[in-house]
Amino acid sequence: MTLQYHAPLDEMRFTLKDVFDAPKFWQSTPKLAHVDEETVDMILDEMARFSSEVLLPLNQSGDDESAQYLGDGVVKTPKGYKEAFAAYAEAGWIGLGGDEQYGGQAMPKMVTMLTEEMLFATNQAFALYPNLTVGASLCLMAAASDEQKALYLPKLYSGEWAGTMCLTEAHAGTDLGIIKTKAVPNADGSYAITGTKIFITGGEHDLAQNIVHLVLAKLPDAPAGSKGISLFIVPKFLVNADGLMGERNAVQAGSIEHKMGIKASATCVMNFDGATGYLVGEPNTGLAAMFVMMNYERVTMGLQGLGASVLAYQNACAYAQDRLQGRADTGVKNADKVADSIIHHGDVRRMLLNAKANSVAARTFAMYVARQLDEAKFGENPEAKAAAHAKVALLTPIAKAFLTDRAFAAAVDCQQVFGGHGYIKEWGMEQIVRDVRISQIYEGTNSIQALDLLGRKTVKDNGAAMFAFIDEVRTAAAALQSEHSIKEATLNAAKRVQDLTEHLLASAKSDPSAINACAVDYLGAVGYLCYAYMYVLIVAAATDKTGEFYADKLKLAQYFSERNLPQLYAHADMAQAGSKSIMQFDAGFFQ
Amino acid sequence: MTLQYHAPLDEMRFTLKDVFDAPKFWQSTPKLAHVDEETVDMILDEMARFSSEVLLPLNQSGDDESAQYLGDGVVKTPKGYKEAFAAYAEAGWIGLGGDEQYGGQAMPKMVTMLTEEMLFATNQAFALYPNLTVGASLCLMAAASDEQKALYLPKLYSGEWAGTMCLTEAHAGTDLGIIKTKAVPNADGSYAITGTKIFITGGEHDLAQNIVHLVLAKLPDAPAGSKGISLFIVPKFLVNADGLMGERNAVQAGSIEHKMGIKASATCVMNFDGATGYLVGEPNTGLAAMFVMMNYERVTMGLQGLGASVLAYQNACAYAQDRLQGRADTGVKNADKVADSIIHHGDVRRMLLNAKANSVAARTFAMYVARQLDEAKFGENPEAKAAAHAKVALLTPIAKAFLTDRAFAAAVDCQQVFGGHGYIKEWGMEQIVRDVRISQIYEGTNSIQALDLLGRKTVKDNGAAMFAFIDEVRTAAAALQSEHSIKEATLNAAKRVQDLTEHLLASAKSDPSAINACAVDYLGAVGYLCYAYMYVLIVAAATDKTGEFYADKLKLAQYFSERNLPQLYAHADMAQAGSKSIMQFDAGFFQ
Repeated sequence: MTLQYHAPLDEMRFTLKDVFDAPKFWQSTPKLAHVDEETVDMILDEMARFSSEVLLPLNQSGDDESAQYLGDGVVKTPKGYKEAFAAYAEAGWIGLGGDEQYGGQAMPKMVTMLTEEMLFATNQAFALYPNLTVGASLCLMAAASDEQKALYLPKLYSGEWAGTMCLTEAHAGTDLGIIKTKAVPNADGSYAITGTKIFITGGEHDLAQNIVHLVLAKLPDAPAGSKGISLFIVPKFLVNADGLMGERNAVQAGSIEHKMGIKASATCVMNFDGATGYLVGEPNTGLAAMFVMMNYERVTMGLQGLGASVLAYQNACAYAQDRLQGRADTGVKNADKVADSIIHHGDVRRMLLNAKANSVAARTFAMYVARQLDEAKFGENPEAKAAAHAKVALLTPIAKAFLTDRAFAAAVDCQQVFGGHGYIKEWGMEQIVRDVRISQIYEGTNSIQALDLLGRKTVKDNGAAMFAFIDEVRTAAAALQSEHSIKEATLNAAKRVQDLTEHLLASAKSDPSAINACAVDYLGAVGYLCYAYMYVLIVAAATDKTGEFYADKLKLAQYFSERNLPQLYAHADMAQAGSKSIMQFDAGFFQ
Repeated sequence: MTLQYHAPLDEMRFTLKDVFDAPKFWQSTPKLAHVDEETVDMILDEMARFSSEVLLPLNQSGDDESAQYLGDGVVKTPKGYKEAFAAYAEAGWIGLGGDEQYGGQAMPKMVTMLTEEMLFATNQAFALYPNLTVGASLCLMAAASDEQKALYLPKLYSGEWAGTMCLTEAHAGTDLGIIKTKAVPNADGSYAITGTKIFITGGEHDLAQNIVHLVLAKLPDAPAGSKGISLFIVPKFLVNADGLMGERNAVQAGSIEHKMGIKASATCVMNFDGATGYLVGEPNTGLAAMFVMMNYERVTMGLQGLGASVLAYQNACAYAQDRLQGRADTGVKNADKVADSIIHHGDVRRMLLNAKANSVAARTFAMYVARQLDEAKFGENPEAKAAAHAKVALLTPIAKAFLTDRAFAAAVDCQQVFGGHGYIKEWGMEQIVRDVRISQIYEGTNSIQALDLLGRKTVKDNGAAMFAFIDEVRTAAAALQSEHSIKEATLNAAKRVQDLTEHLLASAKSDPSAINACAVDYLGAVGYLCYAYMYVLIVAAATDKTGEFYADKLKLAQYFSERNLPQLYAHADMAQAGSKSIMQFDAGFFQ
């Protein structure tokens, strides 16, 4: 009843090489000349081994034990976590995508996304410790001074120190403009940070020597709202100019949360009591610095969903192969046993195929976005970089929200395959559901992602970026050299999303409530279109190739087209209905 | 952060009286002449009080503490459960729908369904103890001898004794035909029962003096498969002919499960070691006896979903009213505060309205099915009884599966309203999600319900019962004296389900996999049609009435029609796609 995981390396390589021809991209991009196929294959093999052998065995035990708050600001991670983190850091995984100048390995997101998938697949709670450290590094890389980078990045990449992002306060989650944490200038150029942050992942733990908090706070003269937020480095132990750790800073964990899942991850209340902090970048530009990092982080949350859905799928398949119950509709398969394997039952397959069709599309879509991230970061051509950046901005909310929504549904479907056993802790499936649920909530709830997509990314530029993307989808589908049903299905889907977008752009002009009321269903519709587009790319890559692996891809595309894609139209119709049926109620109705 | 609940008595009375005019039905049904409006109002008021004051306060603490296995077959329920069960039993709730001859109060399902809704809303885990006792009573009432009824029913109704249903074995869940538990005749006419049952809700606990197990087992000469299953009474303490408890029987709990939710409910492994059992009814008719009970039980599981979704909704509304974050799109509402209440945000309302639209439709649909159950049980006219029975058989899988699927989605939506707080245990929302998840799995998984609906209830009679029901829906919609959008929406929906049904009847003739591959989406489509039908009845009842309560019903019907019903078409299209895209994969693909 221990969860099994075999890293889907064949699927990953298919996506990386057959669908996107990454090696060609690397060869043609000077700043990625150091990336070669052989190295990447070794990286993937090694993470497949590490995640299965080291992280997976700590997944269920970590949930049983949970992170523990021992009082006096001390947090203990579950048994084995400290050693696993040390081994993970030692192997260089935290700096895999980090800048070479500071000891990183400068691997592109197209590679790190695959290691992140495996990391999240095998242990969602553990994954957050290195993941937040990577996030803090990205943020420093984007906004910190050279001195700050030199002081912190090498230690973060090596995992000697860990990182956090301290944004949320009890009264300020989505609405960061109203945070109360204050930063008062000290005589030496540093700041005294005072306030309380909540929901701080990895805010305190016993995995690293030091913890580098990146904290949003307000300067005394800061403008009101989100334009008055600054970013500070607040290390748990102060760092001397020589890079050595100095005295303990006035920041301490007050407690940790008891949560639905990711229980081995310490979610802390952090009290800053005049703690010494160092300004990152210019005053009042804290949110902008955060957003550079967020495009990476939000894709990574999508990968949490992907990883979880793969783990759920593999274990549900194993159960369905083993479990004997009833007889196959097409005739007895297992005459010497009292019943046939439930893998022969159509509805069991439907649930498994939902998860499989999702994971293949999700990985492809994440790779598509990663490709744009890499172009924007490593490319040479300013126009191509700008175009890639714009596409990242448009698609990131989908990579976060749609991937995690579909992954949660996949995990629930896979749990259902187990019948009653799916509800029992020891089988591990219910934990996957509990753990992955957070991915729809944190890093900006999926509602916030949808508002970003429809409001800031679509309505704000009058649909320019979205229409360009829909054109790209339409062109790719039209160019498909195959009579596969995905072709026409995608062209129809593109038409529907085009019409919907035009309709909502018009609505938004006269109805201030249109965006908020329609955003989530709009994201659902666009998300299915993105997946359809990915299956166009998959079919293009698999057509005319020999072997069952490729033939199965064509079958999966058909399954997606017939048994998942119709939901695009439901989302589109619901979004198109507008805000009236929602906003017509008095606020007092809701009780 | 304690969960709040105010029983929606106004909603319940609207359903009972405005929509279904239950008092008129009771007056015109001689066997229900004892049911009067005043008594029913008192019953509802009393359960509203009891559930809020006694059961709700034990909900979160019961989850924290869980049922505990103390070894040697002893199970301890959480603090307060024993006293609450005693008070519940003392108040006569367990016998509320029981037969008068044995001390029950003979209330119709139209009334008990509302008390069950409140019971499940306030404490899903507690609810299962009395609920299984009611289930065992129904089973005995349907199949036991007069002596058996006299011996057991009064004690079960009074709650002095509790009941269980022992069906599942480790290798036999859905497929009960392959159970191994044996019943060997003793010289005295009793049987020696030997075997191990799993997932036995309330198999052991400290709430009652005795526990009456109803056990499925095989006689030595039983035919293979489901036609060779007999039903036995196996009391924890043997019962002497005088009704007093005798010696301890050879049945004992071996352990309890650690589960995702309903943790205060003891889910037991039960070991029968030559335990004394008494045959109920004729040999080899055990499953038939069970099925009489199951129509009631499955509707009750739908009510678990309904109750849970109401609790989730009420608490999400309270949070959304209190939580200040961002500004309303239509202008500042709360100028003296830093932000507006999130109840003004369209997407927050969308999530809440999904839950509200679901709970109103679910209660109405459960009442519709309860009305048929009451007609079948208490009616005079044989034809009307038979018609009601047929309708119950058709709609029960929908009442179980569709209500619980929609309720789970509603609970997740309401959890999402809380943002990060929804993931934290102390707020209570994540527990509702964990608890209600079981309702999609037990009492026949929702996949099994769907197979029942499409296979046994629709294809088997060539659609006769389904087409009759669709005609009823169409007639009601056409007769609606209102220009409300639900009218045309329901007529269109009925047409779509009619076409889909015809298509699937034809497919099933040539494709043995069609039913299994399409059943769940078929149930989804029919479920949305049922809800649309309910909104036709609701609009009919609310039109031309004065006051905000009724006006809000018309608005809610519009919301449902525009923002939920489109999903019917997605389900229909996915079901209509048939089995090919599912069955084309080799079994070995799934790994």
